Amino acid sequence: MLVFDPICALATPPGAAGLAIVRLSGTDCFLIADKLFHGKTTLQAAKSHTILYGTFHKGMLPIDQVTAFVYRAPNSYTGEDVVEFGCHGGRIVSEEIVEALIEAGARHAEPGEFTKRAFLNQKMDLTQAEAVGDIIHAVSVQGSHAAARQLMGGFTKRLGELREKLMELCGLLELELDFSQEDIELIDKRLLAEKIEETRGFCIELANSYRSAEIARSGYSVGIVGYPNAGKSSLLNALLERKRAIVSATPGTTRDYIEEMIHLEGSAVRLVDTAGFRESGDMVEVEGIKLAVELLAQCHLILVLNDSTEGKDHSTALLKSLRAKFPDAECQLVHTKLDILGTNTFDTSTALAISTVSGSGMTELKRFLASKAQVAPETVSDALINARQASLLRQAADSLQKAREAALAGESNEFTAIDLRDALKRIGEITGAVWNDDILNTVFGKFCIGK
Amino acid sequence: MLVFDPICALATPPGAAGLAIVRLSGTDCFLIADKLFHGKTTLQAAKSHTILYGTFHKGMLPIDQVTAFVYRAPNSYTGEDVVEFGCHGGRIVSEEIVEALIEAGARHAEPGEFTKRAFLNQKMDLTQAEAVGDIIHAVSVQGSHAAARQLMGGFTKRLGELREKLMELCGLLELELDFSQEDIELIDKRLLAEKIEETRGFCIELANSYRSAEIARSGYSVGIVGYPNAGKSSLLNALLERKRAIVSATPGTTRDYIEEMIHLEGSAVRLVDTAGFRESGDMVEVEGIKLAVELLAQCHLILVLNDSTEGKDHSTALLKSLRAKFPDAECQLVHTKLDILGTNTFDTSTALAISTVSGSGMTELKRFLASKAQVAPETVSDALINARQASLLRQAADSLQKAREAALAGESNEFTAIDLRDALKRIGEITGAVWNDDILNTVFGKFCIGK
Repeated sequence: MLVFDPICALATPPGAAGLAIVRLSGTDCFLIADKLFHGKTTLQAAKSHTILYGTFHKGMLPIDQVTAFVYRAPNSYTGEDVVEFGCHGGRIVSEEIVEALIEAGARHAEPGEFTKRAFLNQKMDLTQAEAVGDIIHAVSVQGSHAAARQLMGGFTKRLGELREKLMELCGLLELELDFSQEDIELIDKRLLAEKIEETRGFCIELANSYRSAEIARSGYSVGIVGYPNAGKSSLLNALLERKRAIVSATPGTTRDYIEEMIHLEGSAVRLVDTAGFRESGDMVEVEGIKLAVELLAQCHLILVLNDSTEGKDHSTALLKSLRAKFPDAECQLVHTKLDILGTNTFDTSTALAISTVSGSGMTELKRFLASKAQVAPETVSDALINARQASLLRQAADSLQKAREAALAGESNEFTAIDLRDALKRIGEITGAVWNDDILNTVFGKFCIGK
Repeated sequence: MLVFDPICALATPPGAAGLAIVRLSGTDCFLIADKLFHGKTTLQAAKSHTILYGTFHKGMLPIDQVTAFVYRAPNSYTGEDVVEFGCHGGRIVSEEIVEALIEAGARHAEPGEFTKRAFLNQKMDLTQAEAVGDIIHAVSVQGSHAAARQLMGGFTKRLGELREKLMELCGLLELELDFSQEDIELIDKRLLAEKIEETRGFCIELANSYRSAEIARSGYSVGIVGYPNAGKSSLLNALLERKRAIVSATPGTTRDYIEEMIHLEGSAVRLVDTAGFRESGDMVEVEGIKLAVELLAQCHLILVLNDSTEGKDHSTALLKSLRAKFPDAECQLVHTKLDILGTNTFDTSTALAISTVSGSGMTELKRFLASKAQVAPETVSDALINARQASLLRQAADSLQKAREAALAGESNEFTAIDLRDALKRIGEITGAVWNDDILNTVFGKFCIGK
């Protein structure tokens, strides 16, 4: 086991509650903790996986009654010696405990540093570390479950099998190279190409599950767009089932759009109403509204609201412009204010029609959104592919494609082997079998402190 | 030990973080937990104060890798068998664990129910239970420390001594009653009155520490009032040291006032800017503005801002009206916009003068606020008296006053003893030696779920 310098951080969310946990990990961690913890016995003398009860002191003052959870290396989250203090869940007391630990010789942990140490000590691979983050930030049950399966090694196992297959092929090719003088063909080139194609297909399939994994992870994003007075706020409020849409304001930041999460039939749907579009008179001219464009670019679906009282073709130009600008998103026309018009005379095969006043069409709209947001269960099984992993899988697939072409062209085994090795390296980067500081920074930089 | 039905709740704050803890307490708690927890051994077989590692299942699905903390009655927080699950700090996964425990036979805990059980099982008295709440909600280090001392039995010990003294006096009086035929005086009436007065003084002193305890607990509240354009927002922003005062909006509630906490020299100062007053043209006519009046009634200090460019007496009527309306608060005149006036020609013995533009007078104002907010350390030592306790202490003091008068008037010992017993009962209610459901509801109803 690698043992690093002692680090500490609040591991539970900030806020008032019954309990908070402060985590301490690294060298001398029991020594540091014993300066501050006063119980019947010392933490240094305590067995692994036991709980001690005592008071926590800062300076000369007892500041709380705490429980101390003792984990001895290598049987801890990080693989190092770890003490976790369970204190009362007050902001002040948990801050004071962290301060006292720092005064006693620890330093404040960096984002993701505990999990990074777990990785470096081979307690988990990178896909499992990433799953930890996914469980923590999951917005849907489906996403949380898929992340849990990944954490338990589902993805690790699949990638292991993939690696094994490729290693076997590499082995054969290299064996053949040894016998190259004797012109022995250990593996049929056509069969080799077939086997490569098989693994390539698997990489592509996994990479393609990224989109549905993103939906499971962060929710299905729906942009609400329309000319002024098309009924955007009314629709948002009707979907939220509240009188007034409340902006979840983050102190110190300017938020000029509304983003709200709703759950439809078990799926998380993220509704995005862009103020930029709201306030612009010229809806077709979207170029200037950078933020709104950025937000819509991330949407899976864009609902284009058309004020039906202005005529059924009133928003045709807007719809066309959005389709051109956001080719990856699905654009769906929704006629609004059906109650004023009185009847639904719209072609329901291409457009939806609603009234937020009478409620007509709302059930259909919700069902439509739910069906879109539903991730097919088989696409997210035991892996929740993220952007980093998808990119590496695609790179591996490219290398495999080259390897296959080399094999089919009857080129020297050396070339095929180089490409196979390259694919193996990419797959190694996914699990962290191959890593460098940049890779670790990419993975753990996204974590928050205390993880 | 009393053992109640199994209850569960999230014990850590909601939100995303490394860890969350779900607590389960009561009869059959290991049986219930073992249905869902899959580790090397069962929780039923585990020793007290040990930590097990395993997976948590909901239905057939493993939903997270967890640690299980095992506490066996009576050595737990509640005094019952307790299991705490440490899961990843995601909203979804912690909710699912609670749901699974409920499906398996537990019920969701009521606010303060864990701590209530701790009280009923004599793990702590009521003053200690109240200290738990105070540590959790502490806004200042001073308040958190005083609550910690109360939790560790500081107040309990003091009240115990008080009880003992009163019991001794009662004993003597009752002994004398037994010998009443023989006309033996075991205790000199004047000495008795003196001893009663001593304990009464102690009760009053403790009750009077309520005000400073409240400041240590919730911060020192400062209302900012003034005619329109007097510079209220500028002052608020200058004190907050931000460009723009951000309202901490709670979704779904209408907040028409601004309340912000700042820390000055270690003390918590709560700044209250009432929108009601802000928008009212007629500042003297406060009757109609119910919310603003309620808020100001809770303030320790009201800063009355006077626009100095309108003349030094411009706000005299307002100041007078506020002093009449809020006799418990201190009203302090603050002349603003000193930079426009150029010089400070105000009587600094009665008024402060500031400019938020040039910053002149701001250091003095902050020092003034800090000195007011500073709670004398000796007034809050090992007890953080709350309203309930203060009220009971005053009732006890009243009974002791009656007892003293009876003793001095040479009335029968019986009467003195009745009053002493009454004082004892009140003190018993503080610690919970005497309790009923109403008392428990008062204390634990304020707790949040999971405590």
